[in-house]
Amino acid sequence: MSVYNFCAGPAMLPAPVMAKAQSELINFDGLGVSVMELSHRSKSFLAVAETAESNLRDLMSIGDDYAVLFTHGGARAHFSAIPQNLLAAADCADYLVSGQWSEGAAKEAKKYCQVNAIDVQGNLEKLKALSQGQGRYLHYCPNETIDGIAIFDEPNTTQPLVADYSSCILGRNIDINRYGLIYAGAQKNIGPSGLAVVIVRRDLLCGAQPQTPSILDYQVLDAKESMYNTPPTFAWYLAGEVFKWLKAQGGVAAMEAMNREKAALLYDFIDSSDFYRNGVDPSHRSEMNVPFQLANAELDAQFLLEAEQGGLMALKGHRSVGGMRASIYNAMPIEGVKALVEFMKRFENRNT
Amino acid sequence: MSVYNFCAGPAMLPAPVMAKAQSELINFDGLGVSVMELSHRSKSFLAVAETAESNLRDLMSIGDDYAVLFTHGGARAHFSAIPQNLLAAADCADYLVSGQWSEGAAKEAKKYCQVNAIDVQGNLEKLKALSQGQGRYLHYCPNETIDGIAIFDEPNTTQPLVADYSSCILGRNIDINRYGLIYAGAQKNIGPSGLAVVIVRRDLLCGAQPQTPSILDYQVLDAKESMYNTPPTFAWYLAGEVFKWLKAQGGVAAMEAMNREKAALLYDFIDSSDFYRNGVDPSHRSEMNVPFQLANAELDAQFLLEAEQGGLMALKGHRSVGGMRASIYNAMPIEGVKALVEFMKRFENRNT
Repeated sequence: MSVYNFCAGPAMLPAPVMAKAQSELINFDGLGVSVMELSHRSKSFLAVAETAESNLRDLMSIGDDYAVLFTHGGARAHFSAIPQNLLAAADCADYLVSGQWSEGAAKEAKKYCQVNAIDVQGNLEKLKALSQGQGRYLHYCPNETIDGIAIFDEPNTTQPLVADYSSCILGRNIDINRYGLIYAGAQKNIGPSGLAVVIVRRDLLCGAQPQTPSILDYQVLDAKESMYNTPPTFAWYLAGEVFKWLKAQGGVAAMEAMNREKAALLYDFIDSSDFYRNGVDPSHRSEMNVPFQLANAELDAQFLLEAEQGGLMALKGHRSVGGMRASIYNAMPIEGVKALVEFMKRFENRNT
Repeated sequence: MSVYNFCAGPAMLPAPVMAKAQSELINFDGLGVSVMELSHRSKSFLAVAETAESNLRDLMSIGDDYAVLFTHGGARAHFSAIPQNLLAAADCADYLVSGQWSEGAAKEAKKYCQVNAIDVQGNLEKLKALSQGQGRYLHYCPNETIDGIAIFDEPNTTQPLVADYSSCILGRNIDINRYGLIYAGAQKNIGPSGLAVVIVRRDLLCGAQPQTPSILDYQVLDAKESMYNTPPTFAWYLAGEVFKWLKAQGGVAAMEAMNREKAALLYDFIDSSDFYRNGVDPSHRSEMNVPFQLANAELDAQFLLEAEQGGLMALKGHRSVGGMRASIYNAMPIEGVKALVEFMKRFENRNT
C-alpha cells in the first residue's frame, strides 16, 4: 500500500531525496562516514553547503545584493531576530495579522520595537485597501499554515516587505526583489526541522540591537557564511538535495503549475460536495495547506481512522481549528491528492 | 579498510546507531515514512522524545527538580540564553576562563549582565586557590575542545555551577546535584549538530529577562516540553538512539572506564616519544580531545595526508592552535585509538 503523508510539518520530503539520503547515510561521497559526521569546515561539507546555496539562488533568482543564511531554529527564531536586526528599539514596524503565525510574529516583535498590528483576520478584503504604512518594514505571512489562508499578491506598499514564507517557499514563483527579507523554517517545503533559511537584502542590515544573541545576528552569520557556530549540517545537506530535486523537476515554475493542479483537484471536489467544506475566501485559499471540515463533526474520528488505514496519514486539523487539513507541499505527488479525493468520495458515499 | 573519524564535531556517532538509523530512515516503526517526516506532536514522535528524555535522566541520575530541555542551536545559543534566564541585567556572574570556549561564553554574557572573568589560562594551578565568588553563578567549561584542557573537579564554591559540557557530557560520571545548569551542543557526544541539551534546576528559573527570545526562554521550553516550536526532530531521535546505545554499553561508568583507557593509550605514547608532544598539564589533560604537535611542524601536511590514506580522518588541529587533534569521544572504539597510535609509530619511524 502506498503511504501519503499530509503532515503540515515536519512534512514529507521528496521520495527520491529520501532514497538517496538512505543509500549514502553511512558512506557519504565514498568517505566511509556520514555527511552528519563531517566537520562543517571540511572540504566535503563546504561543497555541500555552497552547492545548496547556489542552487537556492538559482531557483529563486536571488542576486548578490541578498545574503542567503542557513540558520538554526525554525521561523520562530526569526520572529525575534528580524526586529533585532532590522531596526532600533524606538522604531516602529507594521505587522499584517492574517492568522495565527503572523499574529505570533507580531507578538514576539513587541519585545524589540513598536508594533503597529493591522488585523485583517475575518476580513481579507481589507488587504485591497492597504495603504502605505509608517513602519520601517511591513511584515506579513503569505501562507498561514494553520488557517489555510494565502496572500498571493504582495501588499501594495513601498516599505521593505518582510515575509514568513515557511509553508510556501519554492511553491510558486516570486520576485525576490520585491522583498527586503524572506524567511522560512525548513520543515515544510525545504527539508527536516531544525533549519531555517533567511534571504535578506544586505543594505537593510545596519547593525543588530545590542542584546541580539550572536547566533541570531544576521551580519555575523553573513560574514561567517552561516558558520558562526556549527550549523545543522544534516538538515543543510538534505535541503541541498531537495534543491537539486526541484531543479530536476523543472524548478519553481514547474512546481507552481503542479501545486495549482493539486490544489484545484482538492478544492473543486470539496466545493462540489455538501459533505465537506472549506470556509476560506476562494481568492485566498492556500495551495499548500487545505483545511476542511466534515458537515457532521461526529464523523471526524472515523474519517481519520479510515484514512490512516488507507495509507492517508496526518490529516487531522490543527488543534486550534479542528476538522481536517491536507498539507500538499511540493513533495506531495498528485497521486497522493487523487488518492485523498477518492477516499473522501468513498467515505461520503458510505456515510450519507 | 576501516575508517576512524577523529573529528572534534560534528563527530562520529556509534556505528550501531548509524546502521539502525539507515535501516529505518524511510520507514520508521513500520509507518512507511521517515521519523523526520512525522509531526512532532504525533504519538509516534512523542514516544521517541519521551524515551530519549527518560533514558538521559537514567544515564545521568537526573531528578525531577531538574528540567531537561532539547533545544535548537548549539552551545552558543546558550551562551546568550543562560544569563538571560538565570539573572537580571544588573546582576553579576563569575566566568572561569580556561580556553576558547569559556572565553566565548564570557564575552557573550556581557550583553546581558555584569561579568567577572577569572582567567586561569596558562596557569591552571590557580584553580586550586579559587575562592567563593560574588556572582549569582559560576560558569565554567569542564572540557575545552580546542585546547584539550579538562577541569575534572568542580570548582570549590557554593554558588550554582553552570557548565558547558558540550564535549564531555556522558563521558564520565558527574553528580548533577552539584550543578545549577549544564548544557551541551549535541554534535560531540550526543548526536548530530543542530540540537543542544540543557539540564537546569527549576528553582533557578524565575523569569527570563524581557528581551529574551521565546525560543531561548527556559521556562517556556520547560512548560511546552521542548515543543514551543517545532524541535529538531531527527536530531532528537538520533540522540535517543545514542542514549539507548550508551545504556546497552553499561552506561556512563562503562564509558568512563573506556575513555580513560583510550586516553591513557594515546597520552602514554605521546609522552614516550620525542617526535610528538602535548603541552597540557597532565592533571588537566582532556580525555575527549587530545591535541598534539609534531616536533617538526614541516611534517604536518605529510602526517595528515598519510593518516587520511590510512583511514584516520580529521586529525588536523583547530585552525587557532595548529598541529593535530584526535577527538576520541564515546563513539570512538579503542581499536581506532590503537590504529592511530600504530600509525603514529610508523610515521615517526619513517621520519627520524
